[in-house]
Amino acid sequence: MSIIRENYKSYGFTEIETPAMESIGNLCSKQGGENEKLIFKVLKRGEKLHIDTAQEENDLADSGLRYDLTLPLSRYYANHASELPSPFKALQMGNVWRAERPQKGRFRQFMQCDIDILGEPTNLAEIELILATTSTLKKLGFANFKVRINDRRMLRAMSDWAGFAEDQFESVCIILDKMDKIGADGVRSELKEAGFSDEAVEKYTAFLQGMNGAEDTLGYVKETLQGALDGEVSDNLSQIMTSVLAAGQEGFEIAFDPTLVRGMGYYTGTIFEIEMADFGSSVAGGGRYDKMVGRFTGNDTPACGFSIGFERIITILLEQDFQIPGEKQKVAFLLEKNLPAEKLADAIAKAQARRNEGQQVLMVRMNKNKKFQKQQLTEEGYTEFVDFYCEELKR
Amino acid sequence: MSIIRENYKSYGFTEIETPAMESIGNLCSKQGGENEKLIFKVLKRGEKLHIDTAQEENDLADSGLRYDLTLPLSRYYANHASELPSPFKALQMGNVWRAERPQKGRFRQFMQCDIDILGEPTNLAEIELILATTSTLKKLGFANFKVRINDRRMLRAMSDWAGFAEDQFESVCIILDKMDKIGADGVRSELKEAGFSDEAVEKYTAFLQGMNGAEDTLGYVKETLQGALDGEVSDNLSQIMTSVLAAGQEGFEIAFDPTLVRGMGYYTGTIFEIEMADFGSSVAGGGRYDKMVGRFTGNDTPACGFSIGFERIITILLEQDFQIPGEKQKVAFLLEKNLPAEKLADAIAKAQARRNEGQQVLMVRMNKNKKFQKQQLTEEGYTEFVDFYCEELKR
Repeated sequence: MSIIRENYKSYGFTEIETPAMESIGNLCSKQGGENEKLIFKVLKRGEKLHIDTAQEENDLADSGLRYDLTLPLSRYYANHASELPSPFKALQMGNVWRAERPQKGRFRQFMQCDIDILGEPTNLAEIELILATTSTLKKLGFANFKVRINDRRMLRAMSDWAGFAEDQFESVCIILDKMDKIGADGVRSELKEAGFSDEAVEKYTAFLQGMNGAEDTLGYVKETLQGALDGEVSDNLSQIMTSVLAAGQEGFEIAFDPTLVRGMGYYTGTIFEIEMADFGSSVAGGGRYDKMVGRFTGNDTPACGFSIGFERIITILLEQDFQIPGEKQKVAFLLEKNLPAEKLADAIAKAQARRNEGQQVLMVRMNKNKKFQKQQLTEEGYTEFVDFYCEELKR
Repeated sequence: MSIIRENYKSYGFTEIETPAMESIGNLCSKQGGENEKLIFKVLKRGEKLHIDTAQEENDLADSGLRYDLTLPLSRYYANHASELPSPFKALQMGNVWRAERPQKGRFRQFMQCDIDILGEPTNLAEIELILATTSTLKKLGFANFKVRINDRRMLRAMSDWAGFAEDQFESVCIILDKMDKIGADGVRSELKEAGFSDEAVEKYTAFLQGMNGAEDTLGYVKETLQGALDGEVSDNLSQIMTSVLAAGQEGFEIAFDPTLVRGMGYYTGTIFEIEMADFGSSVAGGGRYDKMVGRFTGNDTPACGFSIGFERIITILLEQDFQIPGEKQKVAFLLEKNLPAEKLADAIAKAQARRNEGQQVLMVRMNKNKKFQKQQLTEEGYTEFVDFYCEELKR
């Protein structure tokens, strides 16, 4: 956490903490999609609680635990915009709660690490968010990861160009999202099954198949979608990729991927994700959501964010036997029982001196089986042992 | 937080995080005293919730938000004792929730920083907890603070010796707790008002008054309470104070104070508090609670803890215009609108280079009123500005 925090800070992000509880009205305002079904709701208290006349859950609850950090940030920004710098670059590392069935790798309380830039309309936001996130992952020791980037407007253009109706867009995207698992043929079958027009399905699938052979994906898409795609969208993607590469970071690639979808309906422009070869799903994701703050204030505020899944990162690091950089040398002082006052004082003074020099010193009573005790401490990472006895002779 | 974390780590404390929610049964098990009235309760979900037949709050709620960190730690230790080292030295920095009326300096969500040592029966625990806490406060820049130390068994001996009945002990303590505000005479009046025997009240008050003149408080108390006080209790206090002083830390004093009470009923031995001249109430407090883990496991485990009130510390630091040590140099890069790609790339590369050197670099678009923008950034702590223009000539 301190590596993540330090690096984000060097990019000018300010750490903020928003409350764990939000009013039930904000949480249930249809911005959280499926997550709204998973809210832990908090009972009203005192005179406000009327058990006898309550008909439904929201008669009993006045607040709930947040299911993400984006909603509390938007609410916070809406309340404090006038006091905050513009653009406002926020870092949040906080727990969120979802009432899911707990299972391996899925918790009901988990941590999100979000960076967001509010008030920046240009792609400077995207560039900074991507650079800050990739450099953080590199500081954590990751290499050979891939940033995939796309734009919700690109997905819209592809769907329009192929001839799907406007209200079919979301359904088409949900199927396209499976492309990496089922391939272009699989996408075709599912689109057909869903009952969309053969013509649109064939045009869409041919477009996806043609993409596989193209050397320059963005060039291919630009040329193919001519007329349906606003040139600004492809120029924007191209500029973001060029600028990220210009920063000279190594060890990862960034690539345009027109099949990247990202579930959240609130995205309005660029979307991005980071995937790692040795981990199934993405480890970080984000995008631009220019319409969310406006739902609180009435005034739209450009906004863009990138979130690292903390538990996912930790899972990979633990599997790789991650060594925390700058870890202190661990020393254990073993004190025989009933050490006389002056010898105890001596041990304490020596421990303090070593702590001041940056060592981690554990003071423990010496067990009868000293050998076993030292074995256990060795397993906990202690590399040096100092014994303190009541009588000098025993040394 | 990182200063606190780093210093506690050098004492061998391991940071753990326990869940924000606990089962309602654990939270309402009478270990939290008054705090149990302030629990935020969480509604049952799905099939478990029966609104129509519910009679009382606990028919509707199956869990709640924790009101302190000691209960979750004890529950955690009870579940995992066999896998944990002994002694187990835990650091927790986490939020707790209490449904109080919010007011200045009192929040419904606030942070506690607790260190606890479980499984250490000797006063090595007290000594380490006090040294770890005082050195942390010193690293935060505090000086001239005072550690007050007492023992619940000392309070009991004073009460017994004076002639109060056993079941009057808690009430006597509640009145004694006001000694620093109302003085010995005030304590006498309140004890009399409460209807206790004149003889006991006079003996108790005379004891308190005699203490004021004594040079060596512990010596005075030991001598006066002879017969009623177990010599082990005073020897223990004396040894803790000597050992803490032996560590050679400067800038604070430690003193025995027989009027220190500490509200929590779960303390079984030593109790301590830290007070600062420029802050009304205590900023840290703790003590030994050897009977709490046993309520979960059936086996008593020696336990001792010390908790810093995070918001209190922060309040004082902010009033003193606290400078965070090791803060990065803050630089702002101002980018003119529509900067051509190669100039944007140049700015990004320069920002990355400075970030790698440890500077904090903010990249922002240049506003029309550049002078005002720089003024605002200066107020936010930015000390260097670099302008990037579309055309060289403008420089």
